[in-house]
This record gives sequence, C-alpha cells and structure tokens, in this order.
Amino acid sequence: MKINGVQYRSVRVDPEDNRTVLIFDQTRLPFSLDVLRLTECGQVAHAITSMQVRGAPLIGAVAAYGLALALRTDPDDVAMERDAAMLAATRPTAINLRWAIDRMLAKLRPLKPEDRVEAAYAEAALICDEDVAQNEAIGRHGLSLIESIAKDKKKTGTINILTHCNAGWIATVDWGTALAPIYMAHDMGYDVHVWVDETRPRNQGAALTAWELGSHGVPHTVIVDNAGGHLMQHGMVDLVIVGTDRVTAQGDVANKIGTYLKALAAKDNNVPFWVALPSTTIDWTVTDGVREIPIEERAASEVTHVAGQMEDGLIGRVRITPRDSAAANPAFDVTPARLVTGLITERGRCAASAAGLHALFPEQAT
Amino acid sequence: MKINGVQYRSVRVDPEDNRTVLIFDQTRLPFSLDVLRLTECGQVAHAITSMQVRGAPLIGAVAAYGLALALRTDPDDVAMERDAAMLAATRPTAINLRWAIDRMLAKLRPLKPEDRVEAAYAEAALICDEDVAQNEAIGRHGLSLIESIAKDKKKTGTINILTHCNAGWIATVDWGTALAPIYMAHDMGYDVHVWVDETRPRNQGAALTAWELGSHGVPHTVIVDNAGGHLMQHGMVDLVIVGTDRVTAQGDVANKIGTYLKALAAKDNNVPFWVALPSTTIDWTVTDGVREIPIEERAASEVTHVAGQMEDGLIGRVRITPRDSAAANPAFDVTPARLVTGLITERGRCAASAAGLHALFPEQAT
Repeated sequence: MKINGVQYRSVRVDPEDNRTVLIFDQTRLPFSLDVLRLTECGQVAHAITSMQVRGAPLIGAVAAYGLALALRTDPDDVAMERDAAMLAATRPTAINLRWAIDRMLAKLRPLKPEDRVEAAYAEAALICDEDVAQNEAIGRHGLSLIESIAKDKKKTGTINILTHCNAGWIATVDWGTALAPIYMAHDMGYDVHVWVDETRPRNQGAALTAWELGSHGVPHTVIVDNAGGHLMQHGMVDLVIVGTDRVTAQGDVANKIGTYLKALAAKDNNVPFWVALPSTTIDWTVTDGVREIPIEERAASEVTHVAGQMEDGLIGRVRITPRDSAAANPAFDVTPARLVTGLITERGRCAASAAGLHALFPEQAT
Repeated sequence: MKINGVQYRSVRVDPEDNRTVLIFDQTRLPFSLDVLRLTECGQVAHAITSMQVRGAPLIGAVAAYGLALALRTDPDDVAMERDAAMLAATRPTAINLRWAIDRMLAKLRPLKPEDRVEAAYAEAALICDEDVAQNEAIGRHGLSLIESIAKDKKKTGTINILTHCNAGWIATVDWGTALAPIYMAHDMGYDVHVWVDETRPRNQGAALTAWELGSHGVPHTVIVDNAGGHLMQHGMVDLVIVGTDRVTAQGDVANKIGTYLKALAAKDNNVPFWVALPSTTIDWTVTDGVREIPIEERAASEVTHVAGQMEDGLIGRVRITPRDSAAANPAFDVTPARLVTGLITERGRCAASAAGLHALFPEQAT
C-alpha cells in the first residue's frame, strides 16, 4: 500500500545491499515514520519482542529474514538451530511465527552451510510474496461484498465500513486482511469511508489503522469503542469487517477485545458482520470458542496508562486511573458464530459454520 | 460517602463562616483532591462551565448556592433575575439546573430583598437534602436487588456489578444513583465488587467512579469499555447498574455512549441490566428514544487526546490519533427498553415500559 503516494511493503530487503532488512517502527506510529535497518538476528528478535513489528503474518515474515541474517554470521547446523529456536521464542503465542521458522528450517536443513544464506533470503521472499498473494485474494473476495452493497444502495452514497483494531497492511506484508477489500474498493473508485474503532487499551485503531488509511488516502473517522452501536442504530454503518487471531472449526471468532460487542450491535441492527482471515488462522482442533480458547490477560498498565504524543512532541504516557485502583486487561474475546454473517478467506467467502468451512476446505473434512 | 474514612457531601457550606460554598474540583480527580472555595456567583458559573462540578443533580444544587452568593452582593429584583439567568445558561442542556434555579426564584421572588439571602441558603440546603433523600431511596430499592442476587448465589461468593460512566455520589450531593445501592450493600457487609468501565472518551469511570469507590473502600477493578461483554460471557458479571440522562415514557434509556453495547451483552448472557434514576429524569413527552432524543456531538479533541497524569505528576494530555485523521464524538446513546430489565427510582422499581412507569407514577397517566 501507499504512504503519501509511494508504494511500500511492511518488510523489505534494502535494494542497495541486498541484505539489510527494513521495517517500520510501529511503536512510533502514527507520530513518526521511522525505518529500522536490521542487520543482525538479535535486532530482529528485539523488534518482535518490543512490538516494533506486530501482526501475526508480518512477524512470521520478519522472523524468516531474521534467520537469513543469522546465517550470514554462522551458517552451521548448531548455530542455525539455536538462532531459529531463539527467534521462535520471541512471541510464543504467535502461530505464524512458529510456522515460518519451521518452513525455513525444512528448506535449509538439507542444504550445505555455504548455500544457506542465499536460500534463506529466497525462502523469506517467497513467504512474503505468498502472504501478499493470499491477502490480495482475501481483498478480491471482500471487494465483491462491497460492490454488492454499492449496488443495493442504489443512490451513489458513501459506503460506511466499521473496523476494530488493526488488520491492515502494517500487520501483514501488504494489503492486510480486513482492510484489503477496503483498499481495493478505494483504489477502484468506490466511495468508501471507514469508521475506525480506537481499540483500547493499545489503541491500534487510533494509531495504526487511522495512519494506514490516511497515508493511502482512504477517508476515515476515528471513534471511541463505545460509539459503534449508536452509529449502527442510526443507519450510519453499512458493513463491519474485522480480522481475527483464531477461528474455530464451527466458525467462532477470537479477535481483539470488544469485537463481540460490535457483533452484537451489528446483529441487533441488521448490519452485515464479516471476518477476514487467511485459512492458516483456522484452528480445526477447536469447536466452541467461548469455552475452549484461552484468553490472554495482558498487563494492567495498558489499561491504567495511555500512550501518545505529548504537547512537546515526544511520545509519552499519562495515567488515567487512581494509583490504588486495580485494572484487568483481557486482550481478546470470542464472537460466537451465530453473530458472524460470514468469513472471507483466500479461497472465497463462506458461512461461519462447520458446514460453511468444510465446503470451502473439503480437505479438512473428517 | 467517605473519603478515607471521613464523611463528605459533594457540595457543602463552610461551617466556619456559614457562607462559602465548598466543592471538589472534579477536573483534578483522581490525581489531586482539591477543595474549591466559592465566594461569588461568578466562581460558581465558572465551576459549572469548566466542569469542575458535573452531574445533573450536583449542578442544580451548586447553582442554587450560586444564587445565594449572588444575593449577598445584590438582593434586588433586577440583579436576582439577571444572575439567575446567567447561572441557568451555564449548561443549557442540564434539566436539573433550570429546575433548581426556577425553584429558587419561586421561593425568593415573593420575599423582601433583605430576607432573600437567608432564604436562599435555606432553600439550597433543602434542595441538597432532598437530593440525598431521593438517592438514598434509590439505593434502598436497588439494595434489595443485590440482596436477592446474594441469596440466589447460595454460596457466599462475591457479587460482581458492572457500571458505565459515573453515576456516583460525586455526580449528586451524596450517594449517587447507580452507585447508591452498591455503597449501601458494601456498608451492610455484602461482598460486592465493581467492574468499572473506563468510559471513553472522557474516562469518567476510570477517573471518578474508580476514585469514589476506592475512597469509600469498595473493591473494584477498572476495565476498558471493550471488556464487559467478555466478562459477561464468562459469568463474571452478576448485575449491571447504570445511571441515565433521560428516560422516555416507554422506558428507553439515554445514557453515556457505550451503554447500549453493554445492554446488548447483558441480554445475550442473561445478566440483569438495571437503570437507576430520580423520577425527574423521566421525559414524559418522549416515547421512542432512538428516534426522538437528539444526541449531543461533542468536541473531536476528546477522542483524539486523552488527559491524565504525566510522569512528572502534572496533569496533561497525549494525542493518540494521526494529526490528519478526523474524529467523531457522539456523547450519548439510547438503549431500547426491550434490553432494560427494569428501572430503579426513588418510589421503587418498575419495568422499563409505559405500563411499568405508569404503575409507579399514576399521576402521569394520560
């Protein structure tokens, strides 16, 4: 996607030297667009743990390049396995991270050490290209949804789409998942406008989604997480699209905390509620999401403090609660399949149900 | 209610001089407990416009004392009418403000100017005492709800109550509305714990409700507005109680933005959702709340910036959105009566319906 007219990917290799890995420092966005130049595996590990890069697909891709950088220092078996394990441990819950490292190792182990560096860069590039292709396919399948709404609206009014958290290009290599159809519709000239939930406590909507959309030129308005229901009651939302961290075999959707509340409001107001995901996000071993998916409890400080840009331009934080008040911080919730209009995958759209998923992924049928 | 063991009201006359009006500066809470000494009508007007005092019942009571202070300077008819009009205009939408000023004028106009100051202090004190009595009655009627839940729970577990925004003693003269039953239950020894929605964008929950409850010793935990649905899904909420700014003749409830989302989640999880209000909050002229109640759109800066305590201890604010991103800020939403388990008024509890309201307020039957 574009930043002020220039096309970027969230991770790329510096064309000047064909080895340095370039990422955007997401802890500085939206206030400062800093490109980080990663030349060592340890810098990659730090970038992941400190959330300078985030978003499951992007983490996987950056870790793959991290292994390539590690091999530049030492391509022998022992070093490779050690560095791979270290990278895989940076965020133990991210499924794509483990998947990307395993894929790299499967490719590299059979090779002679002196051939590994080149092969590692090539495989990491392949992972990136596949991510982009998958997200582009999700975008196309979501685009036709937006086109249908545009036809139904008859009058050529704005199509208002609400999203929660950040499932945009900055969370992937390019396009994003939930935002891919929106970028595509915008680029094709559809009059789309996005309601951006700020997404407390970490404000990924206010900070990242708003920045992404603004940089690409997509009209959008930031709202507090409390406002979406009211907007839906008043016909100001035509469609909700969100991403997801895990979808169960019956179509329950785990996503950023607060997604469930928006799904309830969408149902109550007959607003279509769609979830965009690569099929690697489906956990075929789990059925009942509310009962079975463990929900990560994150630090209370994310609730008690809010980070942002201070009057002096520096990035800082303010405390918003009394010092003696406890805070709880469940990071995700589960939206039951009954509230989900459907799923948008790289293979197409389907109902959020076991039948819907099996029709699209027959190889998973038991 | 108590602050660290000492009983306070939100507004009182200094017993040292029997004339200075004392309030807490709510723009400094929870970080600093500053008592403001108001000795002139102009200071009262400023306190209301700058939201040093807020909450409809409290604003009415403070404005009544403001008129008493004005009369100390000039008790003649012309000055009294001018100062009353000025006070009434400080927050034109607050129903209680106009009501309190009208009541004061009705009492004072027939009196000789030299008798007005004493009468004004007496009438303002009466307004305060009546507010306290009314809220105490709301508390008693809500308390029996909590007692029923305690009995139903059989085991002597904690009773978890979720609330949104601030409808506590700091928004009234004492007790509060939604929090009155909670204070009463706590004081009687019930094991109550409150989930406090932070209530973006102005964070009245994080700042005021958490401070109130903590100061009185009521166990509580602050959560982001996104979290309540997840807690209800997992049986961690026994009861929701909120306040309201306006209730329609059929029981629709206008309250702080986001209330509707919590009501949807309560309904979806069979959690009782109650609304506490003095009967003066009922607007008998309005029926369909979603269609008829105009929703105030407040400044975008409340969304784009968050105020709190900086690392250096000073109160400041941080920007959380990109500079070029628009923000929308609807301040209230309407919860349809079908989602409301019932209303808690000073006369007792009733269904959120025309029939329920008329049974409790037969004098309003048309």
